[in-house]
Amino acid sequence: LRERRYKRVRKLLARMHPAKIAALVEALGREERDALWQQVSASMEGRILPHLKAALARQLAADAAERGEPSGSVDTGDSDDSRLSVDAVNQLAAVREAVSEDRLKRVGKLLHRMHPAKVAGLLEALPPSERGVVWSMVETDRAGKVLTYLHDEIRATLARELDPDDLVAAVLPLDLDDLVDLIQQLPNDLSDLLMQATSGARREQVETLLAHPEDSAGGLMDTDFIEVRAEVRIGAVLRYLRLLDTLPSHTDQLMVMDRQGLYQGVLRLSALVTADPTWRVSEVMHTDVAGIALDMPATEVARLFQDHDLLSAPVVDADQRLVGRITVDDVVDLIREDADRALMQMAGLDDEADMFAPVLVSARRRAVWLGINLVTAFLAAWVIGRFEATLEQLVALAVLMPIVASMGGIAGSQTLTLMIRGLALGQIQKGNLRVLLQREMGTSVLNGLLWAAVIALLAVVWFGNWGLGGVLGAAILINLLCAALAGLAIPLLLQRMGIDPALAGSVVLTTVTDVIGFFAFLGLASLWLV
Amino acid sequence: LRERRYKRVRKLLARMHPAKIAALVEALGREERDALWQQVSASMEGRILPHLKAALARQLAADAAERGEPSGSVDTGDSDDSRLSVDAVNQLAAVREAVSEDRLKRVGKLLHRMHPAKVAGLLEALPPSERGVVWSMVETDRAGKVLTYLHDEIRATLARELDPDDLVAAVLPLDLDDLVDLIQQLPNDLSDLLMQATSGARREQVETLLAHPEDSAGGLMDTDFIEVRAEVRIGAVLRYLRLLDTLPSHTDQLMVMDRQGLYQGVLRLSALVTADPTWRVSEVMHTDVAGIALDMPATEVARLFQDHDLLSAPVVDADQRLVGRITVDDVVDLIREDADRALMQMAGLDDEADMFAPVLVSARRRAVWLGINLVTAFLAAWVIGRFEATLEQLVALAVLMPIVASMGGIAGSQTLTLMIRGLALGQIQKGNLRVLLQREMGTSVLNGLLWAAVIALLAVVWFGNWGLGGVLGAAILINLLCAALAGLAIPLLLQRMGIDPALAGSVVLTTVTDVIGFFAFLGLASLWLV
Repeated sequence: LRERRYKRVRKLLARMHPAKIAALVEALGREERDALWQQVSASMEGRILPHLKAALARQLAADAAERGEPSGSVDTGDSDDSRLSVDAVNQLAAVREAVSEDRLKRVGKLLHRMHPAKVAGLLEALPPSERGVVWSMVETDRAGKVLTYLHDEIRATLARELDPDDLVAAVLPLDLDDLVDLIQQLPNDLSDLLMQATSGARREQVETLLAHPEDSAGGLMDTDFIEVRAEVRIGAVLRYLRLLDTLPSHTDQLMVMDRQGLYQGVLRLSALVTADPTWRVSEVMHTDVAGIALDMPATEVARLFQDHDLLSAPVVDADQRLVGRITVDDVVDLIREDADRALMQMAGLDDEADMFAPVLVSARRRAVWLGINLVTAFLAAWVIGRFEATLEQLVALAVLMPIVASMGGIAGSQTLTLMIRGLALGQIQKGNLRVLLQREMGTSVLNGLLWAAVIALLAVVWFGNWGLGGVLGAAILINLLCAALAGLAIPLLLQRMGIDPALAGSVVLTTVTDVIGFFAFLGLASLWLV
Repeated sequence: LRERRYKRVRKLLARMHPAKIAALVEALGREERDALWQQVSASMEGRILPHLKAALARQLAADAAERGEPSGSVDTGDSDDSRLSVDAVNQLAAVREAVSEDRLKRVGKLLHRMHPAKVAGLLEALPPSERGVVWSMVETDRAGKVLTYLHDEIRATLARELDPDDLVAAVLPLDLDDLVDLIQQLPNDLSDLLMQATSGARREQVETLLAHPEDSAGGLMDTDFIEVRAEVRIGAVLRYLRLLDTLPSHTDQLMVMDRQGLYQGVLRLSALVTADPTWRVSEVMHTDVAGIALDMPATEVARLFQDHDLLSAPVVDADQRLVGRITVDDVVDLIREDADRALMQMAGLDDEADMFAPVLVSARRRAVWLGINLVTAFLAAWVIGRFEATLEQLVALAVLMPIVASMGGIAGSQTLTLMIRGLALGQIQKGNLRVLLQREMGTSVLNGLLWAAVIALLAVVWFGNWGLGGVLGAAILINLLCAALAGLAIPLLLQRMGIDPALAGSVVLTTVTDVIGFFAFLGLASLWLV
């Protein structure tokens, strides 16, 4: 009971009579008593205090007052309000301070004022030890929403910290698509638990949605849409909507279908409210919004939303039957996550990982990437090793050789980045690859000539050796040309092999430019200089 | 007249009598005649043909038929339809083929079927020569929308290719925020032209919007919102809206204000259609949507939209007076552009640049980045140069030294990327920096020990020299620790200096890991081995 499982403590306390709690408080040691008192709700405090011995009651009340919390009063004063509405930068500090002082009541109050997304951000910014404490102070009815904003790893950990029945209570009231996302992303045992707790029609819906791959239109959609028939009058639609009380969240348009249930078009709410009630739906609906196919890739859906400025779009199956809708909020999340993932992947990091994961865990994760890069490094070293005799005769080569490799790497990564973006935007296709190749080679030749000359001159000034400068310049020119070629070819090859160019591109490129750079420089030197 | 300025040709032709055109067609040489014929609109063709000499008429009609274009008929047949509705992958190829065969009529038809965003994508994917031709075939009334989807550099070029009055005609019908964006992003002479062409109330609105910095809430907002008073009845609102005919695009909610014009809340359309007509606005409006301050940074606005799943949000000035609204479509564009920019900046590229810019232009742009990196490379070379004597005695050092630098660079970039993302998400603050430092150092020690041992062993096997292995291992451990420190410190320092960590971070980091890596390895070697 005393292992910081505050949520459980609160639940037990809520079932106890005030007098019993008072007895319990008196029976506890000073430290435990303080901790317990932090879990007593404010409205309860007033009812418990009379049952306590006078001295103790005074002490607890004084304690609370000293900490700036008017005991027994639920509505905090104005001064407290202003302190609570601190901006985001100070929230973390405020919460951490409150946690370190075991003032959990204050933590709860701070959290209560924050949007679930902010709470999620706060939890991720906390070290794991404090994270557990703060998490236990999030109200169960808001915990589900908070879970949806967390990254995978932290979400799984925190979901596991909840009691199973708390988890179910937190998650089940969520919107259907949020619920499906959670079930998809939580570890198997937890998602099974949630599936079992979902019942009836809702369970069927969840199962239908789960059947679609996560990165397709089917995986993005929800089924919370309102459909109307094309031949109905606007006035009837309005009467129907009034009966509904509330519309599903993010409803900006109703879906219009014919008698066979086939998708016809959309009726925007903005068109609905400006239309004459006697008109028919078919006269004001928009038919230019094509239904999205169930299996359209998620990235294409995102592009479609962006290009057409959509707020929501209907999803249809192969028979043009309406099966769901996609809303822009999920698309925004998708775009943001994709961008995040691209950035992290380039450094071999997992964007869903916890920044504060145990040292052993993150060390193991990053070791893989270091190991892959070690192969590259040893390959380069092996190339250098072939020319040991040459190096022995002219040590200046060893001094200058990193320059060749590094310039090639930079030039290559520019072309590579251009290609990766071009491929992602669909701007690079067979039709214009040849033109792009000409441009890139032209750019490389110009920059190669420029920097080869500059670097060769610097080397001549440094070592007073014209031959060395010539070899260096030639090697740089060669490496820059090869780098441009590699930057163009690698993403195309990786894409054809089904590997994400953004993930593996830069390692492969570095390998190529290192090996070619060292080989060209030392090879030329062994031919001409030694 | 014959310099491929097809738009001008089309305009002139439109004003000429069919008989006159016929005479012109007959007076031209065969090649010019074909080119001119491509500019004659389909409906005109039928009227011109009778005026032509029989032989020539037959020939032109046959020409068109042979190319699969039924001459004189506006509605193309079913087979043509299916060929025109090719998917995106083939559109580029189809357009390029048509351009190369001078079949401009077909290009125009293809373009007409495409969404402006798709046309913009197509234009960007075309080499500049063909781009001009295709651009001249975009209808003036769609050209403005296409301009809004282009990247800066191409937009400026294409806007300049239009006749000034065509540009004005293309741009003025745009939505207010699109117009303002264009004026902001076009070169000064063109935006002055547009400003002069804008008149009256609209000009005032444009000037107000232009006054706000582009990357603030004020720069993102438009002023196309509908406001209602809190005490009005729902039925009255509905009657008012019906008078308006259409609502501004992306209207998902009306703004509610009090008698003084102060912002009160929002009335969602979805609440409006479900509410009883006799209720008052104040009973169904949402007051939990806080007005966004005019000077809120754009990135914060984006985060707000993402976290709260907003479709649109009110913008208020310091007095809580409603001044505009921000819609989610602009936020989506913003998020996508920011992600794009981050990716391109890491390679020293400009995300607004044209992929097919003239070789000289892109060579000059990239030369800057290569030059900056050259300083890094020479710094590393200088460090190696200090140990020339050591290298001369033990050439194996030259073989192994790139490994030390490269492992440090990789480890450092992992920490750097983590920090850059953490800072962008606001997850890294003073409060948790110390914890993060501990984690990163711990991770580095573990990985340093692991890989130092592995690499040292490999070196011993390779060169049979235990001392060399020891020095290599020690240098790698040192470099990995310094890399983690640098990866943490560099983004913080850059941020404090007002420099974007994503832009300059990796150059600075590479400099540090290269210099420390070479220095540690060669320095230790000169102490212990030589």
